[in-house]
Amino acid sequence: MAQQALPGFRDFYPEQLVERAYIMRVWRDIVQRYAFVEYDGPPLEPLDLYTKKSGDEIITQLYNFVDKGDREVALRPEMTPTFARMVGARANALRKPTRWFSTPQLFRYERQQKGRLREHFQLNVDIVGEADVTADAELLACAIDIMRAFGLTAEDVVARVSDRRILQAYLHSLNVPESTIPAVYAVIDKLQRQPRQISSEKLQALTLPQPAIDAILTLDTTTFHTVQTTLRESPATQLTADFSRYLGYLNALIPNGAPWIRFDLSIVRGLAYYTGIVFELFDTTGEFRAICGGGRYDNLLANLTGVDLPALGFGMGDVVLAELLRTRGLLTATLSGVDTWLIANDNVPLERVMREAARLRATGKSVEFALRPQTVPKQLKAAKSAGARETITLE
Amino acid sequence: MAQQALPGFRDFYPEQLVERAYIMRVWRDIVQRYAFVEYDGPPLEPLDLYTKKSGDEIITQLYNFVDKGDREVALRPEMTPTFARMVGARANALRKPTRWFSTPQLFRYERQQKGRLREHFQLNVDIVGEADVTADAELLACAIDIMRAFGLTAEDVVARVSDRRILQAYLHSLNVPESTIPAVYAVIDKLQRQPRQISSEKLQALTLPQPAIDAILTLDTTTFHTVQTTLRESPATQLTADFSRYLGYLNALIPNGAPWIRFDLSIVRGLAYYTGIVFELFDTTGEFRAICGGGRYDNLLANLTGVDLPALGFGMGDVVLAELLRTRGLLTATLSGVDTWLIANDNVPLERVMREAARLRATGKSVEFALRPQTVPKQLKAAKSAGARETITLE
Repeated sequence: MAQQALPGFRDFYPEQLVERAYIMRVWRDIVQRYAFVEYDGPPLEPLDLYTKKSGDEIITQLYNFVDKGDREVALRPEMTPTFARMVGARANALRKPTRWFSTPQLFRYERQQKGRLREHFQLNVDIVGEADVTADAELLACAIDIMRAFGLTAEDVVARVSDRRILQAYLHSLNVPESTIPAVYAVIDKLQRQPRQISSEKLQALTLPQPAIDAILTLDTTTFHTVQTTLRESPATQLTADFSRYLGYLNALIPNGAPWIRFDLSIVRGLAYYTGIVFELFDTTGEFRAICGGGRYDNLLANLTGVDLPALGFGMGDVVLAELLRTRGLLTATLSGVDTWLIANDNVPLERVMREAARLRATGKSVEFALRPQTVPKQLKAAKSAGARETITLE
Repeated sequence: MAQQALPGFRDFYPEQLVERAYIMRVWRDIVQRYAFVEYDGPPLEPLDLYTKKSGDEIITQLYNFVDKGDREVALRPEMTPTFARMVGARANALRKPTRWFSTPQLFRYERQQKGRLREHFQLNVDIVGEADVTADAELLACAIDIMRAFGLTAEDVVARVSDRRILQAYLHSLNVPESTIPAVYAVIDKLQRQPRQISSEKLQALTLPQPAIDAILTLDTTTFHTVQTTLRESPATQLTADFSRYLGYLNALIPNGAPWIRFDLSIVRGLAYYTGIVFELFDTTGEFRAICGGGRYDNLLANLTGVDLPALGFGMGDVVLAELLRTRGLLTATLSGVDTWLIANDNVPLERVMREAARLRATGKSVEFALRPQTVPKQLKAAKSAGARETITLE
């Protein structure tokens, strides 16, 4: 028999499950404070739910197959298509703004690398039906509150925030030709992950004006104030005014929130997908991949379901988060052991122990006892190894 | 885009998820009182994990496929093989008796019938490392305690208990030839689901002695006392003595437990699998399929993993249970609504509302407010539709 799980899949022994349960508990606790309600969908879905959103290229990363009823199906690689389907099917009946969350296990067939799994659990938090930046502020405030609930501080994690439309207006103001925009985005996306020299060469090859190249190469340190000033006379002033309000709302929603937030136009997420404010949470040391990413995707519901509603959301996986918490000494959840271990002194019949166990269990306590007659020292040892918080000896 | 989930798969909208969460919460609450600790494994496993236990025939019921790494894989149709693999891999290190539970989602490609889904959630509760009937009693007491925690009584649900070895000894005592035993089991298994006349004809065809036929046809109403008397002089007296102890332990573990327990030798579960005491929980009206089934499977770990440890366990699915609870008016979990809705009186800036929301959320409350300026009556209406338990008006 196979003695191991499939590569990239985790067994959760009780001591690992307790860590997962802790992460889930904090997730649920905080998102519920923000009035999000839980939903779930099937882990197996029709394949076209994913190809319609992401194109056929996504198939290379999927666990997809043909089921016994000749249907093309796939294990869910992300939650948003299921979310869109479910919201779309009941869009009229749902209270707006709709605030939903879920904690699905997701599956991707990725080339195996260190730390890269083929499954993970991902908190998904979404708001549907509010186009204003108030909703964007609520969403990011919730993500940052989760970080805080885990004991992380702004010294550990920072949120990089951007706006896809402001970036576009800024590139226009730099006279970047429309035709080169996709190639420029690709360079921006890698700005912080490759040497500036390489980014510079790529931009030169696009024959951009030198001031534009200089501005793009410093995009990740360009302040909101600079961008605001640059766009002062352009039609994009409304966008920067809205973004300014957004920053003000974040400040109101997150006490002492300023150190958590960093304006960073180099944050480029899913091009075809996001339409407005986007953000990512990173550990400040840059040691790990993004902890969380999200933003506004106002066109997706219309494209996928025909229901035209503005929407925004984020995803936060359990794997990177757990790695970060572990390095910071913040993942300390351990098995709690039983409340009470019942010890039978010599000649106390097992039935009496059982009646006492039943009585205590009825009060909500977790109770264990030796399932066959043992000496008292042996029972005490068993109680200790079970992590019992108390022993009660029956005479 | 696919507008529906796959046939046999459920979407859990918040009002359905709240029911599922309620069932999970009761499951966890009770099994933890019995000192079981939670584990989980991958929903996708190597195919041979299942064929090794159940033979190749099981493949017709599986969601199986070849993954992109050329591995034969399957969505888990049951938890026990994963459980056996995990226990087997760490058998020496685990505290005995090992008490584990899990609440996996399971998948079977079944012909679609009314009420038959292709996925369900199943509570799995297992004990490893104790051969005595004390463990069997703990296990069934736990299952019955779960019924009670849902508000069900012995008028709603009854546990039918049997012992595979006692049944075998009883059939021997009736001079049923060894060669006909598998065919006789098949008849017994259907005894309560088909007319006696048909069962009778099938037994006649096996040319059993008439007293044996008469005894088998009334097996489901044969009392433990009758069986005990019949086997008095046989080597099976030890088995009936142990079973008698088992009933005594159940009586000690379950206050007023007698009405819940019905001795019923006609309970035949997985022939190749169970080795001792077996049980099923049924609704007393016979309206539904079994709510829960389990028993002792002392050979499985040795067969599958080479680790020879006695073991026993049960599975309890969420679907039949929820149907039963619903018909009894016991599935009443509803969305709880937010704790506080903040109402902004005229000219109160949104930032002030947000600061108040942050303050309240930091105390653990769930808080919502209108994300754009609205009249007070409109905000009150929104608060009501959100099920807010209180409104606070900021002046």
